Amino acid sequence: MSVRGPKSGSDAVTGLSHLRVTFDERFYIGPGRADILDLIDKTGSISEAAKRMGMSYKRAWNLVQELNNGFGAPLVQSSRGGPDQGALLTPAGAEVLYRYRSMQGAARTAIEADFSAIQKLRSDLS
Amino acid sequence: MSVRGPKSGSDAVTGLSHLRVTFDERFYIGPGRADILDLIDKTGSISEAAKRMGMSYKRAWNLVQELNNGFGAPLVQSSRGGPDQGALLTPAGAEVLYRYRSMQGAARTAIEADFSAIQKLRSDLS
Repeated sequence: MSVRGPKSGSDAVTGLSHLRVTFDERFYIGPGRADILDLIDKTGSISEAAKRMGMSYKRAWNLVQELNNGFGAPLVQSSRGGPDQGALLTPAGAEVLYRYRSMQGAARTAIEADFSAIQKLRSDLS
Repeated sequence: MSVRGPKSGSDAVTGLSHLRVTFDERFYIGPGRADILDLIDKTGSISEAAKRMGMSYKRAWNLVQELNNGFGAPLVQSSRGGPDQGALLTPAGAEVLYRYRSMQGAARTAIEADFSAIQKLRSDLS
């Protein structure tokens, strides 16, 4: 499922390429939100996470606020004082990230049979 | 999974809200593409499908071309002559749509346990 298509010369992901899960009108999680949580966890810094995502510090900071406010409890804890201060996932943030990755894995497995059937149909017809 | 959140007064979908599956750099299917196939199937018209999706006829027409070209064989067959002519799904189009809906259903089931665990964590913390 995660291998490249036979005709693909790019680094495009194949298989499940976007999974968004919505909890209510205030909170959802998708690949971009999961990636920023992941990078904050790995780097200990919103600023560094932003850089690796190719987004501005301000945008990453706003995204973190949206995540925390939308969830209703902090997922990311950061020191005051601006971009050079550290940040880390709270236990809730780590659990949300872990469970999102688990949902991605479960969904990948769940779609496999239909994915292969569409690939087969496509190669039979072209 | 598909019921509204307890605090939701909107018509927001909860649970799986966006599933995109990518076959290679030329072809993917997500909720919008599935919806237009569905509406062409139901209405027999790209023009009517476009109207119900709130998009221009030109945009819907282009999307159909992208779907057909990207898949590598027609998913939608339309009469020449403009918006008043009929359109219908080919057998391949019907199968792709059916299998996408099947993937949505399977993914919804697959994410249920983690979805509920996140909801519980959220209600425990707020």
